[in-house]
Amino acid sequence: MTKNDIKKKWTTVFSADAAGYSRLMCQDEITTVITLTTYRTIMTDLVEAHQGRVVDDVGDNLMAEFHCAADAVTCALAVQQKLHDENTNQPEDKQMRFRIGINYGDVIAAGKRIYGTGVNIAARLESMADPGGICISREVLERVKPRMPLQVESMGQYRMKNMCRPIDLYRIVPTHQEGPETKTEIQHSHHKED
Amino acid sequence: MTKNDIKKKWTTVFSADAAGYSRLMCQDEITTVITLTTYRTIMTDLVEAHQGRVVDDVGDNLMAEFHCAADAVTCALAVQQKLHDENTNQPEDKQMRFRIGINYGDVIAAGKRIYGTGVNIAARLESMADPGGICISREVLERVKPRMPLQVESMGQYRMKNMCRPIDLYRIVPTHQEGPETKTEIQHSHHKED
Repeated sequence: MTKNDIKKKWTTVFSADAAGYSRLMCQDEITTVITLTTYRTIMTDLVEAHQGRVVDDVGDNLMAEFHCAADAVTCALAVQQKLHDENTNQPEDKQMRFRIGINYGDVIAAGKRIYGTGVNIAARLESMADPGGICISREVLERVKPRMPLQVESMGQYRMKNMCRPIDLYRIVPTHQEGPETKTEIQHSHHKED
Repeated sequence: MTKNDIKKKWTTVFSADAAGYSRLMCQDEITTVITLTTYRTIMTDLVEAHQGRVVDDVGDNLMAEFHCAADAVTCALAVQQKLHDENTNQPEDKQMRFRIGINYGDVIAAGKRIYGTGVNIAARLESMADPGGICISREVLERVKPRMPLQVESMGQYRMKNMCRPIDLYRIVPTHQEGPETKTEIQHSHHKED
C-alpha cells in the first residue's frame, strides 16, 4: 500500500457497543453470543436499509459509515427502537442494550477500512452514550437539524487527548414507545442546546 | 443462530496491538496507516505460515487463533523479529512496535468468530506486554515448555474482574539480534519462574 491508495475524506461514522457485555458473558456465554449475533444481524440489516456500510464488527462492537449524517441518525433511532422491542421479550438480566455514537469528521480511507480522528471521536461518543441511547457530536447535529426534527440535550464538552478543540456532545432524547407494534417516531420539539 | 451453531472449545488466542498508535496517528496519519497496513500484512503472512488463522483485524489490533500454543509463540517471536528489522529502516519517532499477548483457554466459537474468557485474557495479556514484547499466561508456558526452549520472566499475577482465580503472567525475554540478516533464535536457558 502506498500514499496513492489512501485518501482523506469526510464521512459520518456510526459506532455501536453492547453495554455490560462482560457481565452478560460472565452470566451466560452461550446466550450472550446468540443475542449478540442476532442483534448484530438486526443492526447490519438496518445500516444497509439506510444506505450505510458496515466497516467492521468485532466482539460486541459494530462500526458503520454513512454518506449522509441524517441517514446515520435515522438508522440509529431505528436500531434502538428495534432492539428495545427485542429486549422486551427477554428477562431484565439478559437484555442487551447498545450505546451508539455518531460523528461527522475526517477519516483516512485505506481500501474498505477507515482510520483516524473521525473514527476515534465516534468511538468516544459511543462510550459516553447511555445504554440504549445515542450520543452525537455538534457536527452531526448541525448537519441533521435542517433535515429532520430531533430532540436533543447537551452533554457538555469533552476534550480528547491530542485534539486542539473540545467536542460538543448531545444526547438524543429517547422516544421509545412500548409494545412491538410501534414505529420509530421522532418527537417534534425544539432542542435544548440553544 | 441457535445453540447448535455455537460450541465451547479450548484454543490458543494471539492478540497484537500497536503501542503508541494514537500518538503516531496524531503525528502523521497517512504514514501511520501505510506502516500499519504493511505490518499487518507481515503478521498475517507469519500467522498463516505458522498454521494459525487471523480471526479479525480492526484498527491497530490483530487477533489470531492457533491449534498449537508452541506455533503461536514461535509465530510471535518471528513477528517481533521481523517488525524489529522493519523498524530499523524507520526514524525512531515513526517506528511502530506491537505488544503481543498469547493465552490458551476456553472460548465460544460461533462461525469464524471467537468470544469469551480466553479471548479477553489474551487481550489483557497483550495490554500488559512491552512494546515489541510478548506476554503469555501460565497455561501457554506449561504447554510450550516441553516443546521448545524459552526464556521467560514472571510478571506476577493479574486478577481480572469476574474471574475466580488470578492469571499468572510471563514476559518472554527478548532476544532480538541487530541487523536484517539475523534469524529468530530462542535462547537456551532455564526460565526464571521456577
